[in-house]
Amino acid sequence: MKELPFLKLIHDDLERVEALLRERPPGRHEAIGMALDHLLGSGGKRVRPALVLLSAHLCGADMDQAIFPAASVEMLHTATLIHDDLIDDSLMRRGMETLNSHWTPAATVLTGDYIFARAAHLAAQIDNVRLMQRFAETLMIICNGEIQQMFDKQRGLVSRQEYEQRIDAKTGALIAMSSETGAILAGMDGEVAQALRTYGTHLGLAFQIVDDVLDFVANEETLGKPVGSDLRQGLVTLPVLLFLEVEPDHPAIQQALRGNPSGEAVQEAVEAVVDSPAIGQALDVARKHAEQAKETLDRFPLTPYRTALLDLVDFTIDRRF
Amino acid sequence: MKELPFLKLIHDDLERVEALLRERPPGRHEAIGMALDHLLGSGGKRVRPALVLLSAHLCGADMDQAIFPAASVEMLHTATLIHDDLIDDSLMRRGMETLNSHWTPAATVLTGDYIFARAAHLAAQIDNVRLMQRFAETLMIICNGEIQQMFDKQRGLVSRQEYEQRIDAKTGALIAMSSETGAILAGMDGEVAQALRTYGTHLGLAFQIVDDVLDFVANEETLGKPVGSDLRQGLVTLPVLLFLEVEPDHPAIQQALRGNPSGEAVQEAVEAVVDSPAIGQALDVARKHAEQAKETLDRFPLTPYRTALLDLVDFTIDRRF
Repeated sequence: MKELPFLKLIHDDLERVEALLRERPPGRHEAIGMALDHLLGSGGKRVRPALVLLSAHLCGADMDQAIFPAASVEMLHTATLIHDDLIDDSLMRRGMETLNSHWTPAATVLTGDYIFARAAHLAAQIDNVRLMQRFAETLMIICNGEIQQMFDKQRGLVSRQEYEQRIDAKTGALIAMSSETGAILAGMDGEVAQALRTYGTHLGLAFQIVDDVLDFVANEETLGKPVGSDLRQGLVTLPVLLFLEVEPDHPAIQQALRGNPSGEAVQEAVEAVVDSPAIGQALDVARKHAEQAKETLDRFPLTPYRTALLDLVDFTIDRRF
Repeated sequence: MKELPFLKLIHDDLERVEALLRERPPGRHEAIGMALDHLLGSGGKRVRPALVLLSAHLCGADMDQAIFPAASVEMLHTATLIHDDLIDDSLMRRGMETLNSHWTPAATVLTGDYIFARAAHLAAQIDNVRLMQRFAETLMIICNGEIQQMFDKQRGLVSRQEYEQRIDAKTGALIAMSSETGAILAGMDGEVAQALRTYGTHLGLAFQIVDDVLDFVANEETLGKPVGSDLRQGLVTLPVLLFLEVEPDHPAIQQALRGNPSGEAVQEAVEAVVDSPAIGQALDVARKHAEQAKETLDRFPLTPYRTALLDLVDFTIDRRF
């Protein structure tokens, strides 16, 4: 696990979360333990647990409780990645081989299911039914968003609004829930929870837009997966939508929108987008969301935890991986 | 939905559960609604919700609360079936086409995930963290059991003890949890919950053994799927284990144990088992579990609900579908 500077503040809490993530209940099939070790060791940034822990500190919640939802959101996230990679037939993530690249689809589906259950189990270790409801709602939103994304791939082109709804469901919802959790733990439902949820929503949108930009501009080594993966799968993201506003008939991109593009077409389309103003425009949209995320924190007292949450926004925008 | 006689007692509760199962939250992709309608309309016997409702009545729990876990267990069961059918590549269940026979694996995985989330959401509608813990634990046991089953298929032969552990995880755990739920709702943790869990464990084992026998002796029409499915997939169940105690070297069964048996070998193996004493012996084991299930109810007052729980055991043994 890489330690980012703004995470030093919660170093000890994160260690406790890590211990929970690595727990091996007796009777569990060794294959699950191996899969979890592989997945949890693959350099995840633990952004979601960090959000739970920082928001918990910010709201003065009991940190002995907060470590459980912090571990739970990472498990939930891991489970959705396992099923996503299987669905997309991805062989690499974060520079490591995905579970489905080695395992049968059956083993991959079941391991993902087990990890969903483990996420629920971790969340149920503290007596907070509101939290359980938010976790379940969020998982429904994520799955619904993934199903929407699947149908979007078949359709090719989507509108800006549809794109934003999709990334909000796919990425924003879990980051918003993670950010909100501190308030729920501290019994600060209502406006405080709402403000932290708004922070997380904008952070999540910024995070996903940067991800979608990196899919064009990063190199395979830092990205940990092939460049242009989205277009190759027929998934239209913000850089493409902005590019099409200027050049709606670009042949290589039109080929990608019709599905099953050739490797050459994908490469050509990626180069066209990278050489256009669309990348800069997409990053501007991400920066706008980042600013909105930061503004919602104005209402909180200026503590190191607030500063860390602000730094986390900057990290999201500036990262190269 | 077929109404079995001992379910008349909880007819109104079951109607409310049915309404919860059919609820369509706004914003949900229509594909999920269609899938759920198909799955929930496919003649499930609602045994698990019935167990929640009957145990809730037996323990004097609040029935306005009990309908939520009752709906949740059916959703949980439905989600596991969706992923199982995908994994086994089954095209038929209960005489209806499975989701994966029409849909892509991607859509099937995600719909199953959504239904897991919906199950968690239904369970989180009442403020009972103990219940949430039991639900999560049970899902972990089920997934672990499915993973074990997957590896068992590769191994071929398993011991009687391994078979019993596997069916306890796969079927017993959810039926035990459903039976125990009434006690948890009524705040009767401890001995009462333990007795109902023991009832459910034995009922679940009897239920699965009868299922495994029906896979040999039923006809395709009443079974709603092809006969001999288990052997075809290399899954060794109690009738085969008992048969092998007498005829360890039967060629067709040995072929099935080595994996990928021919259609003729499966048919020959099924006929050999059906014509042997193994079927009757397997049913004797199921009947023994049924008796043990019934005995654990002796401690409860003789109410119509206790009688219904006893009748449910008899139905499990006597059913032909």
